[in-house]
Amino acid sequence: MKISARNVFEGEVKNIEIGAIMSNVKIEVTSPEVITAIITKESVEKLGLKEGDKVSAIIKSTEVMVAKD
Amino acid sequence: MKISARNVFEGEVKNIEIGAIMSNVKIEVTSPEVITAIITKESVEKLGLKEGDKVSAIIKSTEVMVAKD
Amino acid sequence: MKISARNVFEGEVKNIEIGAIMSNVKIEVTSPEVITAIITKESVEKLGLKEGDKVSAIIKSTEVMVAKD
Amino acid sequence: MKISARNVFEGEVKNIEIGAIMSNVKIEVTSPEVITAIITKESVEKLGLKEGDKVSAIIKSTEVMVAKD
Amino acid sequence: MKISARNVFEGEVKNIEIGAIMSNVKIEVTSPEVITAIITKESVEKLGLKEGDKVSAIIKSTEVMVAKD
Amino acid sequence: MKISARNVFEGEVKNIEIGAIMSNVKIEVTSPEVITAIITKESVEKLGLKEGDKVSAIIKSTEVMVAKD
Repeated sequence: MKISARNVFEGEVKNIEIGAIMSNVKIEVTSPEVITAIITKESVEKLGLKEGDKVSAIIKSTEVMVAKD
Repeated sequence: MKISARNVFEGEVKNIEIGAIMSNVKIEVTSPEVITAIITKESVEKLGLKEGDKVSAIIKSTEVMVAKD
Repeated sequence: MKISARNVFEGEVKNIEIGAIMSNVKIEVTSPEVITAIITKESVEKLGLKEGDKVSAIIKSTEVMVAKD
Repeated sequence: MKISARNVFEGEVKNIEIGAIMSNVKIEVTSPEVITAIITKESVEKLGLKEGDKVSAIIKSTEVMVAKD
Repeated sequence: MKISARNVFEGEVKNIEIGAIMSNVKIEVTSPEVITAIITKESVEKLGLKEGDKVSAIIKSTEVMVAKD
Repeated sequence: MKISARNVFEGEVKNIEIGAIMSNVKIEVTSPEVITAIITKESVEKLGLKEGDKVSAIIKSTEVMVAKD
């Protein structure tokens, strides 16, 4: 199965904390990766983003899914 | 500034493609990382997730933000 | 009220499970629907997506809202 | 591959519109489905949600992914 | 219609920029508001969040919907 | 640090409710703001959106992050 999501990182589950409805899963990624970010043109301009810039990619943990073979 | 988002990955901008409204930014992450995923307890059970499992963390690129000092 | 969200599916609540902060709500959709997905051009190309393709639409449950008259 | 996302709907691509960065994909779902929504306990209370309620499930199209075998 | 989304801000459209697939809409909110944020317990602890703290609420623009009567 | 997210609202924490995994944080925004919404061109057309329209900006609380200096 191929998925449209551009960011698929291989890793290993390190910890799982379970609540009544939600769970917090820690996954150790096994190799560095390229992350794809879709942001507004306006943001690229406001940040003056250009190739070579040192940046952080930021992702809210509620946006991360987990897949297992 | 400290942000509540659990996933903050240091990297370098490798490519930027700009459209009328949106942009596609490629960021090379410079070191392996731990990813935090908040998923339902139901998903943990349906997938039989446990520590040590080989998994993929999947993130839609529209959910990724970029920050620059 | 008209909402910009392109996916509005009529249904009936089948089950509600309540935790301290979050709830898990099951809604049985009463008729088949057309789903709108906004994905990158890059994904359309990588998947070779074209009309007539059999696909799955995938949605994380934290992204679903519920409205009631 | 099993994915943590609770909502996976089988369908057929009916139309694809492609822009510089993003694409709009229409998928006809082939059978009625149960949708899982994770909302706050506060919302369940404010809406007075209970089993049997007629509701709408609302999903922004930027939150929908597409997978193909 | 009542919606489960906790953040509904009244405002006026100030500008619309239209691309091939997406649009950038600027809405001037007409009164200060209370924002509800669902974040992890882990984040509350890591940030040492408590009542009275001066903070910023941060929202990616792809997560904002627009409704009109 | 500058972030690509277009919506950054200054405020004060009014209440925090903590569960096993998630927390519900109420933030009082201290001044009216302009909100940026990225929606489909299709939605702008279906809603007949134009400058001067009275609208609501709607945001699911799971999409809100919190930052603190």
